[in-house]
This record gives sequence, structure tokens and C-alpha cells, in this order.
Amino acid sequence: MSLIVMKFGGSSVGSVERMQIVAERIVERKKAGHRCVIVVSAMGDTTDDLIDMARQLNDHPPAREMDMLLTTGEQVSVALLSMAIHKLGAEAVSYTGWQVGMMTDSVHGKARIVNIKPRRILESLDQDKIVVVAGFQGITEDGEITTLGRGGSDTTAVALAAAINADLCEIYTDVDGVYSTDPRIVRRARKLEAITYDEMLELAHLGAAVLHPRAVEYAKHYRVPLVVRSSFTWNEGTLVKEDAEMEQGIVVRGIAYDKNVAKISIIGVEDRPGVLARVFTALADHNIDVDVIVQSGVKDGKADFSFTVSKEDLDKAIEVVNGLRGEFSIDEVRPESDLVKVSIVGAGMVSTPGVAAKMFDVIYRQGVSIKSVSTSEIKISCVIDGEKLTEIILALHSAFGLDASTEAFVGGPKERR
Amino acid sequence: MSLIVMKFGGSSVGSVERMQIVAERIVERKKAGHRCVIVVSAMGDTTDDLIDMARQLNDHPPAREMDMLLTTGEQVSVALLSMAIHKLGAEAVSYTGWQVGMMTDSVHGKARIVNIKPRRILESLDQDKIVVVAGFQGITEDGEITTLGRGGSDTTAVALAAAINADLCEIYTDVDGVYSTDPRIVRRARKLEAITYDEMLELAHLGAAVLHPRAVEYAKHYRVPLVVRSSFTWNEGTLVKEDAEMEQGIVVRGIAYDKNVAKISIIGVEDRPGVLARVFTALADHNIDVDVIVQSGVKDGKADFSFTVSKEDLDKAIEVVNGLRGEFSIDEVRPESDLVKVSIVGAGMVSTPGVAAKMFDVIYRQGVSIKSVSTSEIKISCVIDGEKLTEIILALHSAFGLDASTEAFVGGPKERR
Repeated sequence: MSLIVMKFGGSSVGSVERMQIVAERIVERKKAGHRCVIVVSAMGDTTDDLIDMARQLNDHPPAREMDMLLTTGEQVSVALLSMAIHKLGAEAVSYTGWQVGMMTDSVHGKARIVNIKPRRILESLDQDKIVVVAGFQGITEDGEITTLGRGGSDTTAVALAAAINADLCEIYTDVDGVYSTDPRIVRRARKLEAITYDEMLELAHLGAAVLHPRAVEYAKHYRVPLVVRSSFTWNEGTLVKEDAEMEQGIVVRGIAYDKNVAKISIIGVEDRPGVLARVFTALADHNIDVDVIVQSGVKDGKADFSFTVSKEDLDKAIEVVNGLRGEFSIDEVRPESDLVKVSIVGAGMVSTPGVAAKMFDVIYRQGVSIKSVSTSEIKISCVIDGEKLTEIILALHSAFGLDASTEAFVGGPKERR
Repeated sequence: MSLIVMKFGGSSVGSVERMQIVAERIVERKKAGHRCVIVVSAMGDTTDDLIDMARQLNDHPPAREMDMLLTTGEQVSVALLSMAIHKLGAEAVSYTGWQVGMMTDSVHGKARIVNIKPRRILESLDQDKIVVVAGFQGITEDGEITTLGRGGSDTTAVALAAAINADLCEIYTDVDGVYSTDPRIVRRARKLEAITYDEMLELAHLGAAVLHPRAVEYAKHYRVPLVVRSSFTWNEGTLVKEDAEMEQGIVVRGIAYDKNVAKISIIGVEDRPGVLARVFTALADHNIDVDVIVQSGVKDGKADFSFTVSKEDLDKAIEVVNGLRGEFSIDEVRPESDLVKVSIVGAGMVSTPGVAAKMFDVIYRQGVSIKSVSTSEIKISCVIDGEKLTEIILALHSAFGLDASTEAFVGGPKERR
């Protein structure tokens, strides 16, 4: 008998009918002798509908009140799913984030989990109940309701799995696993049997929306084995774990892309110690995630550098940088927003020479110039103009030998949380 | 500067536009120098929509999960209303039932408030904020979410007013006050300037749906002055307080009716001590509210008696009574369900002879026979067949001198909570 956390995203519970299918799947697992903790997102478009209403009343609603509003979506899901499970003759009990002691910091809209007090979950499991927990939400020490931001329900699931020492955390979604790249772009994308935490982390960070990076980080840190699989088919999913074998002759596991990229170039900034640190500290203080950072040479006592942020953070980032002009001089702050980032990922890259050169060559052959590059031991990312993204992904997928012999199963719209 | 609790029902916040109107009204009060605590119900049809979804998944959803589901309705309202208030430049903070320590017993679906720990409300008031609290909901000692049942938001408002020692509790609704009877039936119903707690309690108990009896009980017990008024007009409302003057020559303050009446006659029950007590204890144990009780004479060692319950409790009540057949013999349990109760209420009745006779005479002249009668110091109720209810109310209203010289303002559909 094992202890399993099963997470279902918004489109998996998007209607009464889907809710029933999910309930059946859960009860099946329970009857097979497993102890089950379920994590659920808000139903389908609920979150968007709530956001719409909020915007009608206030174009800049307070983040605290947005959290108060949005967390109702998951609460509705857990209550309804529990009812559906009861209907099938099994006992279920639903809990909100605060009820299961999902303690977070107080950054409304993108809070981080700091601690979990799963007493009530464990008690309910001991009473042989299926426990249904609202994803995406938590509570601060002061009793304020928070949300974890995008991918929050994945994070809830993995963090709970770690907290209760679960044997497996299954992420049910609308695709049947992790692919070598987005199957909507590359029809011959291959479904991966297994992938390492680090590779998944890079893919997740790089915009392959199947799993949220924070969830993968948690899984890696606490060694929680993850499975990504479809809510709607019985296909085997993709196992995410510490070590995953590579196929003979394959160096790159997957190709990811991120369309949500904006770049800020800071031209002619005073070159003295601490200036760079000051810029990125200020951005961090405003909760702006900074990605690819490139510093070019110094000339006439002035330096140029650039970094990327998500598009929605662009305006705020420019504001923050301009706010520093009192502290040191800057000639120009230049934003660019129609960019994408394309990346190749594979644990085997570190020991294989020429991988970067091959990537740059593929991009070059499409007539596209590379704006910034960043690398790690297991990935290479290039920031480029967005126009030829599809062609470049197709070309990279072929060039690194990833094309499968059959076309991929392509599910519905991506889960949002 | 006074401290005011303002309660808005579901139809008052039934749309984005109405929410804005309510927000304006609140901010006006705040600008006039008052400290304001707002209690809100779920928006318009939200509760019904949630119930519909639940029924599609489970025809007998667990009461605990229903509470989990339904309390989201008020949480949405408080968040949105706070945003609307912020938009007008005032500071507001929303709270759920559990956040403001609305402690209840654990009877899901109709919990009773046992205690309130309003620390957070008082702190927020001290910070000069408008406090917006979710009505209808509470929490048990074990951290389970509960609902207070029908009229729950009125009760929340009054209980909060008592707990924070408010100067006034205003109940905003879709009618502009308490009327001498239902203005939809009697166009010349008169709006009452003032009414006593006891009279209001009788009217509330008797089905005048403007205020929930539990809320009035609370108000009476803690001497909270109440005002019932319209969300949509600036008309003066009706003040509910300890003493209210009667007009010269008027004995009856109002006429109420209740269409939700079923009667159970228990024929030929063994006449021995304790039997009657046993029946009503069993009903109370099943949370069935019993109203007009009549015992007729004893014959051949057997007694007949009858009582009324609400229609939705009829089946359960019959089941409970039949379950007692093992303890003593009963010849017959006879249900009747198409009944109504019509009542006249007035604090002056006790000192005026002939009021009951006049009421019976009016009913008799309509050719209707009276099935049961119950009286208190300030009211007389008759259970009758429902067919001629309108004619009887009109006739009583005239006979007791209540017809106003102008027609009443009639609002939209009644609030549910």
C-alpha cells in the first residue's frame, strides 16, 4: 500500500462530467489499496471569470483582495470533487489551504511556501478517507490568505507529497507526458519515458508549461518522484527522477521556448564597483525575476549591459531602473519586447563538445541573429527575434535527432496553474 | 462619530453595477465620519448556481462539503466589494468568517454562533479601514467551515454589532422597511416607522422575510438598535428597538403569513406520561423546528395531538414519529401539506379584549375553517387551508385599521439570506 498525491489541473475538472471522470480515477486508485491525497485547481475558466469581474470594479485591485477572491475557485473544486467521490461510495474530505497549514510568506499573488503542518491530512488518512486539498493557496502567520501564483497547484502537490512523505506525486494534466518539445509545433515530438529533475527544471524554467519550475525544485530537493500524465487517457506518463538514462547517440533531451521575454539594455552606465549589484538588488526588491544577463565591454569609463524579464514585468523594471538615475548616470535605457528564448536541454551536453556550435549554426541558417546567450551545464539558451521561432524549433529538433517516427498526441489548451 | 454595521443582501450586490452603488453608499457613510463594518451575502444567484452544480454531482451531498462550497459565495462578495471601495479612494479590508473568529457549533447547514473573537475587526477599524466581513459563515473549534442557514447574514451582522458594541446595525435590503403586511398582497400596506423587538420577532418568525428571527433575537438580547432600509432608495427605513409607540386607536402592528406550513396529526396515541415529551425531544434531536402544537382531549386511554413543521421537514418528521412506534402505540400519523399560517401581531393586544374574536370572525366570513390556533401575549396565529389567503390578509388589514392612504413601494424579489 503506497501513499500517492494526485494533482488535477483546471481543465481536468473543467466541467461536471470531467469532475466525475476524475472522481472515478481517484476511487479506482483507492480501491487498488493506495492512500490518496488529491490536489485540485479551480475549474476551467473560473479564475479568468473572477479576474474579469475584479477588473470591472477596479483596474488595479489590491493584491490581498485578489487572493481573497481567487482562492474561492479551488475551494469550489475541492467541495464538488469530494461530493463526486462520495457519490461513488468512497469517503472524501475537502480542505482549504489554511486548513492544512499551508504556511506561506506574505507576497500576495506569488507567495512561497515556508512550512506545512499536515496534521489534519494525516488524521483523515488514518480514518481511511480520501483527502482533497485546494491547490494554489496558503495562509500567512497573520492569518492572511495568499496564492502561490502560476503553477501554484503543482507546487502545492509536490510540497504536500514531501511533507507527508508520499511515495509518488502524480501530476494529471491535458497532455500525456513531457515531450522533447511542444507537440503543437513539432508533430514528431517524442514523449519522454523519463527525465532528470535538473533537465525538467531547465525545461520548466524555459517555458515548457507542463510543470512549474518551483514544483520541480521542490521535488528535486525532497527527492519526490513525479509522474506527469494525462487525465483523459491511460497512457504511461513521464517519470521525473534523479537519474534518467539517455538513448544511445542522443545528447539533447528536449527543446524549450519562451515567448514571454522582454529585454532591457542599459547603455552607458557609470562604471564603478557596486553599480551592477545595485541594479539587480533594486529589481529583486520589486519581485522582478531577471533572466539572461549579458555585460559587454567597458569604454570611456562607461559600461553597457542587458538582461531579460517577463513581458508583464517590463514596465515595472524600466521604472525601477530609471528610479536609480539619481544614484549614478545612465545614458539610455532601451526596451525590446517582441523576443523569444529558445533552449536546448540535456544532461549529456556537458561531456559532448560542439553542441553550442551546432545550435548557433542551425539558428544562423534560418537567417536569424542571436541577441543574447546563456548557458549552464545542461542547457544553452538563445534570445532571438520571435518571427522564425517555429522554423528554428523544427530545425533544432531534427538536427539533434529528436524526431519520433510517429506523430504526438496533442491535448487541449494548457493548464494555467 | 459612531460605529455602524451595514448589512447588504444578495440582490443588493447582485451585479457589478449594484456592487458599485453599495460601495458608494458605504464610502459616503465613512466620509460622514462613521466607522463602518460591512456584512455581505453572496451575489444574487451565486448560491443557487452552486447548489445546482452540487446536485448534478451528488443528489445527497454531505452537509460539510455543502458548507465548504457555499461559503465561497460570500468570500467572492467581500473581495469584490473591497475592490470597489478601494476604487473610490477609501481603504477596505475583507475577512472571511473564520478570519474574524465567528465561532459556531458544528451543525453544518444551520450552525449557531457560540462566540465571536473580533480582534482583527477592531485592529482594522483602528487603522481607519472599512471592514468587509463575509456573512452567513463561521468556523467550529475544530477548524471546520460552517454556514448559519437561512437569514445567516442578518445574524452575522447583528452578532457582530453586539460583539463590537456598535451604535447601530443597518440591514439594507430590497424593500424600504418593515410593512404592516406584505405590500405585494396588500397595496395599501403601511411602512412602519418603528417596531419593537418582540413584534419584529413574531413577524420574522411568522414568515415576513425581511429579517431573520435569529437576527432579531440577537438584537433584542444584546439591545442592538436595528434599521431595515432599502439599498436602492434614500427613504427612511424602519427602526427596530425596545419600545415603539403605537398610533392612537391601533392595536395590531402587522399581519404576517407563512406559506411554508405542514401539519402532522398524531391520532390515537397511547396516553401515558412522557409520551408527548418523547415525541418532541425526538423531533428536536433531528433539528426539526416544531410550531403550533395542539392537543385535543383524551378518549379510551388514547390522545390526539397535532403540530406544524416547515414543508421541507415534513418527510423527516413523519419518519421520526414512525420510528417511535416501537416505544408506544399510535393509531395513525396524518400529514397535511397545503396549509398556511396567518397571524396578527401587536404589543397592544394584551390589554385590548376582543382582538382574537375579531380575527376569527374575519376568517369565518371568508368561509374558511381554522385548523389550529396559537397565541402569545402579542400575537394570534391561525393555521388554515391556503386557498383564500390573499382575501383573508386583505380583510384583516382593513378590519384592524391598517390600510394606508397611499400605495406601498414594492421592491424586487426577496433576499434569501
